[in-house]
Amino acid sequence: MLGVCYYPEHWDEDRWKTDARRMRELGISFVRIGEFAWSRLEPSRDRFTFEWLDRAIDILTEAGLKIVLGTPTATPPKWLVDQCPDIIPYDEHGRPRGFGSRRHYTFSSETWWKESARIVEIVAKRYGDHPGIAGWQTDNEYGCHDTTLSWGPEDLKGFKRWLRLRYQSADQLNEAWGSVFWSMELESFDEVTLPNLTVTEPNPATRLDFWRYHSDQVAAYDAMQCAIIRKYSPGRWITHNFMGFVSDFDHFKVGDNLDLASWDSYPIGFVEKFPFTEEERNRWAETSHPDIAPYHHDLYRAVGKGRFWVMEQQPGPVNWAPWNPVPKPGMVRLWTWEALAHGAEVVSYFRWRQAPFAQEQMHAGLNLPGLDEWSPGGREARQVAEELAALGPLPETGQAPVAILFDYQSHWSTVIQPQGKDFRYEELCFRWYEALRHLGLNVDFVRPGASLEGYRLVLVPCMTEVDEATRAELARTAATVLVGPRSGSRDRNFRIPDMLPPGPLGELSGNRIVQVASLRPGLADAVTGSVSGAAIRWREYAESRATVLARFENGDPALTERNNLLYLACWPDEKLLASTMALVTEKAGIATMPVPDFIRIRRRGPLSFAFNYGTEDWALPAGAEILLGEAVLKPQAVAIWR
Amino acid sequence: MLGVCYYPEHWDEDRWKTDARRMRELGISFVRIGEFAWSRLEPSRDRFTFEWLDRAIDILTEAGLKIVLGTPTATPPKWLVDQCPDIIPYDEHGRPRGFGSRRHYTFSSETWWKESARIVEIVAKRYGDHPGIAGWQTDNEYGCHDTTLSWGPEDLKGFKRWLRLRYQSADQLNEAWGSVFWSMELESFDEVTLPNLTVTEPNPATRLDFWRYHSDQVAAYDAMQCAIIRKYSPGRWITHNFMGFVSDFDHFKVGDNLDLASWDSYPIGFVEKFPFTEEERNRWAETSHPDIAPYHHDLYRAVGKGRFWVMEQQPGPVNWAPWNPVPKPGMVRLWTWEALAHGAEVVSYFRWRQAPFAQEQMHAGLNLPGLDEWSPGGREARQVAEELAALGPLPETGQAPVAILFDYQSHWSTVIQPQGKDFRYEELCFRWYEALRHLGLNVDFVRPGASLEGYRLVLVPCMTEVDEATRAELARTAATVLVGPRSGSRDRNFRIPDMLPPGPLGELSGNRIVQVASLRPGLADAVTGSVSGAAIRWREYAESRATVLARFENGDPALTERNNLLYLACWPDEKLLASTMALVTEKAGIATMPVPDFIRIRRRGPLSFAFNYGTEDWALPAGAEILLGEAVLKPQAVAIWR
Amino acid sequence: MLGVCYYPEHWDEDRWKTDARRMRELGISFVRIGEFAWSRLEPSRDRFTFEWLDRAIDILTEAGLKIVLGTPTATPPKWLVDQCPDIIPYDEHGRPRGFGSRRHYTFSSETWWKESARIVEIVAKRYGDHPGIAGWQTDNEYGCHDTTLSWGPEDLKGFKRWLRLRYQSADQLNEAWGSVFWSMELESFDEVTLPNLTVTEPNPATRLDFWRYHSDQVAAYDAMQCAIIRKYSPGRWITHNFMGFVSDFDHFKVGDNLDLASWDSYPIGFVEKFPFTEEERNRWAETSHPDIAPYHHDLYRAVGKGRFWVMEQQPGPVNWAPWNPVPKPGMVRLWTWEALAHGAEVVSYFRWRQAPFAQEQMHAGLNLPGLDEWSPGGREARQVAEELAALGPLPETGQAPVAILFDYQSHWSTVIQPQGKDFRYEELCFRWYEALRHLGLNVDFVRPGASLEGYRLVLVPCMTEVDEATRAELARTAATVLVGPRSGSRDRNFRIPDMLPPGPLGELSGNRIVQVASLRPGLADAVTGSVSGAAIRWREYAESRATVLARFENGDPALTERNNLLYLACWPDEKLLASTMALVTEKAGIATMPVPDFIRIRRRGPLSFAFNYGTEDWALPAGAEILLGEAVLKPQAVAIWR
Repeated sequence: MLGVCYYPEHWDEDRWKTDARRMRELGISFVRIGEFAWSRLEPSRDRFTFEWLDRAIDILTEAGLKIVLGTPTATPPKWLVDQCPDIIPYDEHGRPRGFGSRRHYTFSSETWWKESARIVEIVAKRYGDHPGIAGWQTDNEYGCHDTTLSWGPEDLKGFKRWLRLRYQSADQLNEAWGSVFWSMELESFDEVTLPNLTVTEPNPATRLDFWRYHSDQVAAYDAMQCAIIRKYSPGRWITHNFMGFVSDFDHFKVGDNLDLASWDSYPIGFVEKFPFTEEERNRWAETSHPDIAPYHHDLYRAVGKGRFWVMEQQPGPVNWAPWNPVPKPGMVRLWTWEALAHGAEVVSYFRWRQAPFAQEQMHAGLNLPGLDEWSPGGREARQVAEELAALGPLPETGQAPVAILFDYQSHWSTVIQPQGKDFRYEELCFRWYEALRHLGLNVDFVRPGASLEGYRLVLVPCMTEVDEATRAELARTAATVLVGPRSGSRDRNFRIPDMLPPGPLGELSGNRIVQVASLRPGLADAVTGSVSGAAIRWREYAESRATVLARFENGDPALTERNNLLYLACWPDEKLLASTMALVTEKAGIATMPVPDFIRIRRRGPLSFAFNYGTEDWALPAGAEILLGEAVLKPQAVAIWR
Repeated sequence: MLGVCYYPEHWDEDRWKTDARRMRELGISFVRIGEFAWSRLEPSRDRFTFEWLDRAIDILTEAGLKIVLGTPTATPPKWLVDQCPDIIPYDEHGRPRGFGSRRHYTFSSETWWKESARIVEIVAKRYGDHPGIAGWQTDNEYGCHDTTLSWGPEDLKGFKRWLRLRYQSADQLNEAWGSVFWSMELESFDEVTLPNLTVTEPNPATRLDFWRYHSDQVAAYDAMQCAIIRKYSPGRWITHNFMGFVSDFDHFKVGDNLDLASWDSYPIGFVEKFPFTEEERNRWAETSHPDIAPYHHDLYRAVGKGRFWVMEQQPGPVNWAPWNPVPKPGMVRLWTWEALAHGAEVVSYFRWRQAPFAQEQMHAGLNLPGLDEWSPGGREARQVAEELAALGPLPETGQAPVAILFDYQSHWSTVIQPQGKDFRYEELCFRWYEALRHLGLNVDFVRPGASLEGYRLVLVPCMTEVDEATRAELARTAATVLVGPRSGSRDRNFRIPDMLPPGPLGELSGNRIVQVASLRPGLADAVTGSVSGAAIRWREYAESRATVLARFENGDPALTERNNLLYLACWPDEKLLASTMALVTEKAGIATMPVPDFIRIRRRGPLSFAFNYGTEDWALPAGAEILLGEAVLKPQAVAIWR
Repeated sequence: MLGVCYYPEHWDEDRWKTDARRMRELGISFVRIGEFAWSRLEPSRDRFTFEWLDRAIDILTEAGLKIVLGTPTATPPKWLVDQCPDIIPYDEHGRPRGFGSRRHYTFSSETWWKESARIVEIVAKRYGDHPGIAGWQTDNEYGCHDTTLSWGPEDLKGFKRWLRLRYQSADQLNEAWGSVFWSMELESFDEVTLPNLTVTEPNPATRLDFWRYHSDQVAAYDAMQCAIIRKYSPGRWITHNFMGFVSDFDHFKVGDNLDLASWDSYPIGFVEKFPFTEEERNRWAETSHPDIAPYHHDLYRAVGKGRFWVMEQQPGPVNWAPWNPVPKPGMVRLWTWEALAHGAEVVSYFRWRQAPFAQEQMHAGLNLPGLDEWSPGGREARQVAEELAALGPLPETGQAPVAILFDYQSHWSTVIQPQGKDFRYEELCFRWYEALRHLGLNVDFVRPGASLEGYRLVLVPCMTEVDEATRAELARTAATVLVGPRSGSRDRNFRIPDMLPPGPLGELSGNRIVQVASLRPGLADAVTGSVSGAAIRWREYAESRATVLARFENGDPALTERNNLLYLACWPDEKLLASTMALVTEKAGIATMPVPDFIRIRRRGPLSFAFNYGTEDWALPAGAEILLGEAVLKPQAVAIWR
């Protein structure tokens, strides 16, 4: 189904009815509203002006639209910031990040929690049982604009509180952190300082705890909002709209609060954000790289425990990337169908109509700026709506044959301690995902400790701290398991494990890592054997009791196998990665269907979907019973067949 | 005529007479003094020590030199800064920019206005009717070192004052800015904050108003100085020495205060400042790019309403660029003649003698450091003086056939909202200028709303907000008009116009822009038709009721024509730009004289001037009656013919 | 002899005896301890817990190890920072650099001097006459992490004090600094401000004085520690462990306090720190560039007046460079032998055992993390120990035929005033050193004003201020002298000398520099004559009364000779540098032995050492009487012959 993000407060009230009618005409079922409207709901403390929203909700409901109501906490108004200056976040350089855009609060502020609870309760009370309200969105894009971490006095206060709970005594904190090093020992929790503005790098264990603290705060803050909503709005689901490539907090933990996950899909803007090569960026500038949206669909399906929406779908050029091209004709339709193929329940466009004012005035909508006139993206959305209606309900999305274990903490850990400047956790996961998708496979993400039941292949690109639950699952599974570099290289206190890496996986892998090398761009170490290619960026020196499937130039083990667990002791280049994926899928007995690098396949129940991101045609498999599209998949085209 | 910048306070008094005599011997007519001498005029509050300056002025006057006296406000002394700390500017990160160099004041400080008025009055009173004083220079290089904008408490105070005047009520401000977006609404002007240090980008409308406010402050501050000078120094002219490529305030508005404009010409340093390619930077490292000085001459001739000086002419290597090469032999002479060809009344070298101390000790002068001995640049200046004397008075500079509309606000608007990282207003104007100059044409700049009477071709490379006066002039003119991308894309409140861009030019152009794409380096969209080449950086999607002269690859209009107005819907690459200039000059019926890219031509009355920036000879047109130089123009040579 | 850095406080006490025994087994003679242990010695003010250190020292001593005891001042503990916040340094942007890593103090703080004196006295008193204590190390790596300069209130206070002593009156300060420029004159020392956070560049003379002030503070602070130690620990030597490529203070002046110098040799990490080309960085990533360690050995031998140690020798991969590769097998041994060849008395590895916690957990030790098990580097150290034992005592290191004059102030001066962005003093010295080493020569460094007695060739790559002592030595020596660009270009007040550069060398060189050009990358000026190649980066315009040996393209002098002094008026490219070194060694009558660029030779008394940094074999000179290694020097191999 389709949805749209709408801001009645941006338009004269006499336009709302027309807007609602045209939404229905286009085929929109859901409309998200309210998430930035605080100053219009409460222009000064305790002066409430909800009547306009009452009317807007009524009009939308009467038009047959179901409403997703956002809590307005992403944009505290000026009067609140002035009355409660302690809600303001601080950047890593110690500077306050003030009013004038959005997300100007720190999750650490107790005042902020109180104010948030107050407004959420007011909104939830007022609309909780309105028949038009289908569900809720908490806040907006947690963590966007680097707002997970904050470095102010409130953060220090909260961090101390969190440390007291975790460590009980300063001695235990000193022991955990290895504070004896460089005389960093503390006599009491009062002495704790923020791990910024130090002369040289602060203790990585402190940084990791600071990151964990903030991640926990986000999840707890969200839980606080959810509890209030649930109290006043029984029977409605709750979601949050996550951002792409924002991994500063543990999304799985926030997902635990929610009924379903959603995310904001800006495939083209992300091409500039992700560390692609310049060549890739140019190639995919107007379509997006063909794995960016799918990767997030699959990840957020896991965060949502199987259920997810695209809450904001890019409907044309946006305003916030260094360059903002117009998507190629067909791409808005393609992205929409692709989200559905990956299991999205609803694809909701951002936004109904381009705003001719303020920060996002260059962000396209389904309608042209200020006008009641379809934009090119609006016309594509309409086409999808018609096609969807013709096709009828889609079958369930089943479990994929392959799981990738995704671990937010490993991202934080490798940011804190890259050891090699280009060791980027998200990039590693993305490239492994991409390699699987070149083989035409459906992929699931799983969180640490999750059951691996039903998978035939499990990939662990990198998991710095392997907790006992995860280790046990990896020991238990009959799936082929491929574990990547740096896995098990840290214990829970960010120390090197006593038995050396891969720590808890030492026995399962048969390996012990005695040295690691990070390799500057231009350097590589050839790998030959059952797989071939080269190590780049990262290369481990392993002592192995396992079967060595491939070796580095000097004969050291590069890929080892013990029972059903393979260990790859490096960051693989493209060739080695492809070769390794071919090997492990074969070992796992998974049938693959290699596709050109501009084609992607996704199966949903008995249906197969294909998407063409490229500039050449691609022929569908012979004998396909085509439900949508044609046997020859043109550039930017979509096909569905049985 | 020639001039020189001189600092008697830098040298022992017993050297002044020799200096004055040698200036006259060289052929100097004007000498600028005093603009950094505050601490020598008033070493502590109300203790005045003007006697040395009295003597210096007398000595220079007696030697037959005419004096340009600078007000010393660019360098408030330490005691003043200590007594009036509120004059200090703040950078965008909120840090004070303290004493220790120059320009350490904000235009917002009322204290600073009082102190400035006080010292200007004292100086103007004392020397206003001295017979040696020919004219005045206010301050020094407004805006240099990023000093137009400041982000401190005084700036916030002034900004609020300005906003109150502009908007009258908070409601109108909210409406204008679209503050409803992200709950940015304000209840009163007291709630206004500076548009910096926000979590993500601040409202572009706020930023533009903040920029306009500061630009207005500069003009008003300058007007204040001018009023005082005029009161005490009747019959003398006033100028200000503008900097090159500093566009942070509206120079035309400051020019309105002045009798003539002047600017500081550092052609070689600017090669590093302007976004040339590395190849261009290497090619022109020792001569400057052949349009840098001319571009500014023509621009400041407009700012000075037809009258301009070069107040500071680079006479050798400077000290402030990343690299500071020695100009090729002949270039100091070439630049001097070139300024005269473009209409400069006086070319004044900076400086008489290289200072062996302090910040500019590596900045060449006409004399070697500390010595009474010509530098290589000094010898070239002497040659020009002799040639000038031999040639006699130059004819008047007439109106050019082509006008480029230059609009400072469009620079601010595109800096605030680039949308494509490399959309740089100044670069666009410069490249259009360069393309005209390759055709051997004289070019005038005009300001928004100025009369276009007498021009046969008018170029508007980009004018984001097209005010009614400008629209009317463009409607009225019979000239061929070429309008570039983003023109009319914003109204006065930085909103997208109701009828979409090009807003007020919609009717004249016959176009409506429904989408825009910014293109990353490496991407291009081919253009074919009456002109050909490619769009880079920026490409618009126009609906057109006009004649389409050229189209993009997908058939969209790239260049349209309606009556005498052409609209170019992209940033043209070099080829498309040249092709377009060829077309519009032809349509305008302007005879061109294409020259190699290292040759430039300029006409002043019946005289033609040619300048060779290259490494190869160039033959003058056959039949030229040569007044200076030879029929074969050698590298770095100058020729004048009738 | 070999040593090791050990942290008993990092390990359970029951492991100390085993550690001591295994150190002796490996062949370790010296063990450095204590330099970061303050929080374990004094966990809160005046509560002392030295007993563990007593026991550690006893255990090590009983095992036959000699102890180097460090003063713990590099890591003031948290309680001290909280009690004495004025010890905290400030960065150039005015931000405090707080607790949480190391070196969080400013040399300007009087409080810090008192606290330092207190703890040093306590430690020195307690252990000064312990028989196990062989010597002392003051603090740790002065200046590391940009900690020489600090920009806080204590620094301003100290700077004023220093200026008062130097200039006596504000008038003399104004005169020296040329404060008349830009009205920067001060009426009293109270008005002095720090030379940071100015609108544009501050006065370079002020900056240089600020740098000199801090450099003096470092030396005085070190002298304070040394005086206390000498009082309580008679008969023991004192050293400090300098860092590589940290030139922010005058190491020679600190060296004056010491009995011997030592330095911390991280050859691989420095490859990323020094401005090599990317090609060089890739080539030498796993071995280090073959001159990095030798350059520092030779420099610190000079700082130590003939005596030096390597206090910290990299024994494997480290943690702090952007990329941290594993050294090629053999390199730890090679570096150790190489240090000895250059005269190191002891090579001490950092560290005994890799710490599995805190900031340096990825820094290799001689033992694997947390384990009693040799790392690869540990095994190489053991091999060196065995070879050393077999070879017996090494002969004395004699004077080299060539001296390079190294001047810290020239580094500061060219950082303050680069004039060309890539004029880097350290790089110039390094490249000249490298060129000599390609000729197989032993090289000494000498400090300004030092005797040049006994040298046949003296190089002065660049000495911005030539003091009288140095000038006199250069006049006196019979050696061939080669002086490089910018020498003598500043007087002691950072002014251009009255007679123009090279100032005091004008007479000796026969040259006067009237202009200088800095050349952007890509530009070059060919040089031909007795030497050939090209000038890059920097090129001077000299008037010469000397013999011109080579000229630039336009005929200007590039290399001149007057008596025994040659002057090179540019930054030479590789070819010109090699050609010039060939010429001057020939003129000096020095026999050279050119080697491939991956081979280095060093002589120590009658012994010759060769080191192979490359990937190809190299044949030793025929007839060599080989004491270690083989006639064919394999990659990463070492040979010693007579």
